[in-house]
Amino acid sequence: MRPQEIIAVKRDGGELSREHIDAFIAGVCDGSWADYQISAMVMAMFTRGLNPDEQNALTFAMLHSGEVLDLSDIPLPKADKHSTGGVGDKTSLIIAPILAACGIAVPMISGRGLGHTGGTLDKLESIAGYDVNLTTDRFRRIIETCGFAMSGQTADIAPADKKLYALRDATATVPYIPLIVASIMSKKLAEGLDALVLDVKTGSGAFMPNIEDSIRLAEAMVQTGRNFGVRTEAVVSEMGRPLGRYAGNICEVYECVKILRNEPLELAEPTRELSIELAARAIVLAGIENDLVSARSLAEAKLGSGAAYERFAENCRLQDGNIDSIPTSDPFAGKGLSTLEIKAERSGWLETADALAIGEAVVAIGGGRVHAEDGIDFEVGFECFAEVGSEVREGDLLGVLYSRTVEDAECVSEKLRGAYKISETPVTPSPLVSGIV
Amino acid sequence: MRPQEIIAVKRDGGELSREHIDAFIAGVCDGSWADYQISAMVMAMFTRGLNPDEQNALTFAMLHSGEVLDLSDIPLPKADKHSTGGVGDKTSLIIAPILAACGIAVPMISGRGLGHTGGTLDKLESIAGYDVNLTTDRFRRIIETCGFAMSGQTADIAPADKKLYALRDATATVPYIPLIVASIMSKKLAEGLDALVLDVKTGSGAFMPNIEDSIRLAEAMVQTGRNFGVRTEAVVSEMGRPLGRYAGNICEVYECVKILRNEPLELAEPTRELSIELAARAIVLAGIENDLVSARSLAEAKLGSGAAYERFAENCRLQDGNIDSIPTSDPFAGKGLSTLEIKAERSGWLETADALAIGEAVVAIGGGRVHAEDGIDFEVGFECFAEVGSEVREGDLLGVLYSRTVEDAECVSEKLRGAYKISETPVTPSPLVSGIV
Repeated sequence: MRPQEIIAVKRDGGELSREHIDAFIAGVCDGSWADYQISAMVMAMFTRGLNPDEQNALTFAMLHSGEVLDLSDIPLPKADKHSTGGVGDKTSLIIAPILAACGIAVPMISGRGLGHTGGTLDKLESIAGYDVNLTTDRFRRIIETCGFAMSGQTADIAPADKKLYALRDATATVPYIPLIVASIMSKKLAEGLDALVLDVKTGSGAFMPNIEDSIRLAEAMVQTGRNFGVRTEAVVSEMGRPLGRYAGNICEVYECVKILRNEPLELAEPTRELSIELAARAIVLAGIENDLVSARSLAEAKLGSGAAYERFAENCRLQDGNIDSIPTSDPFAGKGLSTLEIKAERSGWLETADALAIGEAVVAIGGGRVHAEDGIDFEVGFECFAEVGSEVREGDLLGVLYSRTVEDAECVSEKLRGAYKISETPVTPSPLVSGIV
Repeated sequence: MRPQEIIAVKRDGGELSREHIDAFIAGVCDGSWADYQISAMVMAMFTRGLNPDEQNALTFAMLHSGEVLDLSDIPLPKADKHSTGGVGDKTSLIIAPILAACGIAVPMISGRGLGHTGGTLDKLESIAGYDVNLTTDRFRRIIETCGFAMSGQTADIAPADKKLYALRDATATVPYIPLIVASIMSKKLAEGLDALVLDVKTGSGAFMPNIEDSIRLAEAMVQTGRNFGVRTEAVVSEMGRPLGRYAGNICEVYECVKILRNEPLELAEPTRELSIELAARAIVLAGIENDLVSARSLAEAKLGSGAAYERFAENCRLQDGNIDSIPTSDPFAGKGLSTLEIKAERSGWLETADALAIGEAVVAIGGGRVHAEDGIDFEVGFECFAEVGSEVREGDLLGVLYSRTVEDAECVSEKLRGAYKISETPVTPSPLVSGIV
């Protein structure tokens, strides 16, 4: 069948058969479908819709467009956590070592920052020498040695997704749930998992800001994971405000290490709390504990005993990262950075610290990428000094942006000031976790 | 605005502003929109729809993406006829000289065969030497001299359409009325016309086989023409069967010359009748006559007096065509062609001579193009020997395919036989003209 004939089926609102979808994904991979045919097909899918059968067939075809890891020779349950992306969203660096310390193998394939959000790979690369470009063999050996490995997607994993995603990004076809599900799940299912916990973000800093959409996305991903025989659960978590104290790269690694080392850090509690919650759910799904209360205790214990930190340190060594390059105190000190202080313009209660605006500011000063080929300045970032819901007085410090130059800061100062709103009456912040699917 | 932002408006079912559409067409022309962005936009337009305002804005932007002819220094009314394409649809070669003989300037920009249909340019090129690649200056001078010129679209006329059409053809986004209207009308309006008669085909051999769709297309084109200040009318005409006696290239030119020279030719009457009808409507719209009855008489008179043929002969000379290369009797004789005879398998009344199947057979034996870069065999073709509705006896000749080789004919013989159906009871053929818009 010619591409046009398959496109016409979806164009007219018909249902695509498994054969149609297989031919489409094969064409994406072997180049027999031109980019303009792929993008026309994806737009037809977006506007006419994909039903659950089509979504499953698409996920299946994308998954099998590449290598599926077989970790069956590692005699441990395999689990992973995946987040839909946010600002200050750094829990992977805490969860993976906790799970490894619990006897779970974690083959974590992560991504780069996208839009206003940070990416796990970028954060890891802010550790001097840390190598995220692992071959499959090395990835496997590191998991066998320390329980987890963190790598970028190789060209062998779901290659169809890489091509499709680039075209979707350029053609306004990213925000459609079945396409998002197929994209995320084709990569996660390639990890050969027994269990998967999804952290679906909601609020301004999430790709799906609306809570109803976030829940629909969570439901679709959980259903897809289960269809493929993976025990899957999703947590819908708050991303209207940044998670924890820092947003950037090495500053976020610093926050994670403080938590892994049980050292106090103001405003970092949400990071710790969400990490424990997500780890606990993975622990239950992986069959290590039977209930969440025991699982949370186990996760806490692995943090408290230093076992999780030991795993982190060992992984760092195995992936060529120099753990001594991670700051042990204020991560912005002594770098010669410019500071832009955001202060309360009046007294009241902090109502909003908008994650989208803060994330965009960090990207704009070089902490993320505007274009895919841009480099990243690992040292710049944003530090929160007040939590949403807390009482503040006029002139109190709410946050500080650390940029390379004064000019960088000036470009985003207005946007950043607009991120903060103070209420005259007390404010109850939305809960960190708003739903479980 | 980035392409993605404009695409997203239509993706979500919103209305595109004139600025959006201008930016889109500018991006098509200057290359700042990638092909995959253009095709995503076109699919969004197809599936979400374009309202009349958007369709007008699109036509306007496409029209003004290139040169608009200004023939105001020619002191004659300007008119043209455009057909949506069919099989054996050769009326342009008769209408243009009739109109020219009536004192109307006809700046006819035509197309090539598309799919199973023939193209005026291909037919003209079957006349030895005939040049359809005229510069604007030469096009104008020929109109001044003999009243009409027939040329291919230059790169300067509606360049956006050329790019868009190629992408639409490859992405299953051709059959949507507002896109068809913008494509056709942007080119026709570039001719600087006072009057335009549209011949919208209906039936199996038409691009819109369904009569309701044909009428909707006719209405949309007429409305668009009038919106742009051109007196416009559409005739919906029969294309369930081929028009007239021949389908091919030089054989169709032969049929036209027979009509222009008032020489009898069996089964050619529908070609003559439709040509007179379309010419008469253009004569009224151009203000040469006040009513159709007078206009038909005038058109008949221009044929009868030989005035139309004189114009044709003069045009042929001016466009470097050797009129002596046009056969004066059986156009297939002496070419060493193979014949495939289609005979009545039983007695009855001829119910169907399917234009689509016959058109596809002619294309398949080289009379049209399978790929845009293919050459054409001008001498092959199909000859009808029985009219739909006529009584036939078992064994009567219904039609003959003239191909270059026996093998060519064998490939299409089954399809061609399937084109013919004979009824046991008398059949009333559908009228040649089924509606006027």
